[in-house]
Amino acid sequence: MRISDYFPVWNQLTLQQQDLLEQSAVYSSASKGEVLHNGSTDCLGLLLLCSGQLRGYILSEEGREITLYRLFERDMCLFSASCMLQSIQFDIQIQVEKDATFWIIPPDVYKLLMEQSAAVANFTNQIMSTRFSEVMWLMEQVMWKSFDKRLADFLLQESVLEGTTHLELTHEKIANHMGTAREVVTRMLRYFQQEGLVSLSRGAVDLLDEPGLRNLSRK
Amino acid sequence: MRISDYFPVWNQLTLQQQDLLEQSAVYSSASKGEVLHNGSTDCLGLLLLCSGQLRGYILSEEGREITLYRLFERDMCLFSASCMLQSIQFDIQIQVEKDATFWIIPPDVYKLLMEQSAAVANFTNQIMSTRFSEVMWLMEQVMWKSFDKRLADFLLQESVLEGTTHLELTHEKIANHMGTAREVVTRMLRYFQQEGLVSLSRGAVDLLDEPGLRNLSRK
Repeated sequence: MRISDYFPVWNQLTLQQQDLLEQSAVYSSASKGEVLHNGSTDCLGLLLLCSGQLRGYILSEEGREITLYRLFERDMCLFSASCMLQSIQFDIQIQVEKDATFWIIPPDVYKLLMEQSAAVANFTNQIMSTRFSEVMWLMEQVMWKSFDKRLADFLLQESVLEGTTHLELTHEKIANHMGTAREVVTRMLRYFQQEGLVSLSRGAVDLLDEPGLRNLSRK
Repeated sequence: MRISDYFPVWNQLTLQQQDLLEQSAVYSSASKGEVLHNGSTDCLGLLLLCSGQLRGYILSEEGREITLYRLFERDMCLFSASCMLQSIQFDIQIQVEKDATFWIIPPDVYKLLMEQSAAVANFTNQIMSTRFSEVMWLMEQVMWKSFDKRLADFLLQESVLEGTTHLELTHEKIANHMGTAREVVTRMLRYFQQEGLVSLSRGAVDLLDEPGLRNLSRK
């Protein structure tokens, strides 16, 4: 496992910069459920994902969560090194959703590379734009889509991610993803069940009518 | 009026890059109310504000608005050139709030500078992070703060921006800023009036009890 196979603008680095990255990056792993980064309380470094799945989320004072984005193989996580980016004024938590392996690049090393290399700086920009776009999408969902549409969207997305229509998700967990209360989720899921869109069992939701859910999400 | 006085990393550009900027940037002005940039339908260029005030906002399919951020003297507006940033997948509108003068930098020129200069790329990154942080703040407001707190926050902020407790704002306009319906704003303002926090007159809101509003916003 070499970082040269994963770092996106590797060929645009000087030999010296490549050496620096190879010597400073640490290959590591973490298990499902682990919190890798906890807001402003740590500055772990940049994560370059080799396998598994991470999620970035925010946390309210009352402990409510909302998922902002997911990271997959070859994605880079900037916000676990947000200490490096002075203009970032918000705290994101990063949790492992599927057992993961990744490179950790120290924040000071990455910062140096950004200052030296326009290619690294522009790549960073591109990641930031992508995350920003994901958050804007979510914001529009929250502001302008009613909850039935959002929940239908969420179930369909989960089904694509997991590759199955049998979703092992508690109402609590769905509520955390969507930044809402468990009761709201339970109520809407029961409505979906009555409509024949899903069937509910303990700790799981089965999608019965995907075209119906898609219709709802498009409404 | 020279762009060298306004462009933030001017001294880190080569002479050739400085020439390019001076020859391609256009000095322009616009009046209050004008829409300078309309989502993905144009790619005006980067705006470097010399005077006045702009606001960036998003628009729902039903025509509802929500203000994302404000731009003041020396601020740079990236999103009026979002065609340049492939990873930006959302549309922002830019409107003049106070008569403005600004430099317009063509998107292809700025893109070239970003590719050549790590300083320009990192500066761009910093603007993006700042805007991203503003949107995250708003998102947390929307998700987790109830409307009374948000409205109190908004009135206090406006009062600071305008330098007066007499705010010439219709309920309609406040509703547009906050992405909500006029009726919701009217109802909450009447509640504030009953509580002695504000007094309402045609097209204006006067703040009577700023400490009280601050208390509410902190709740």
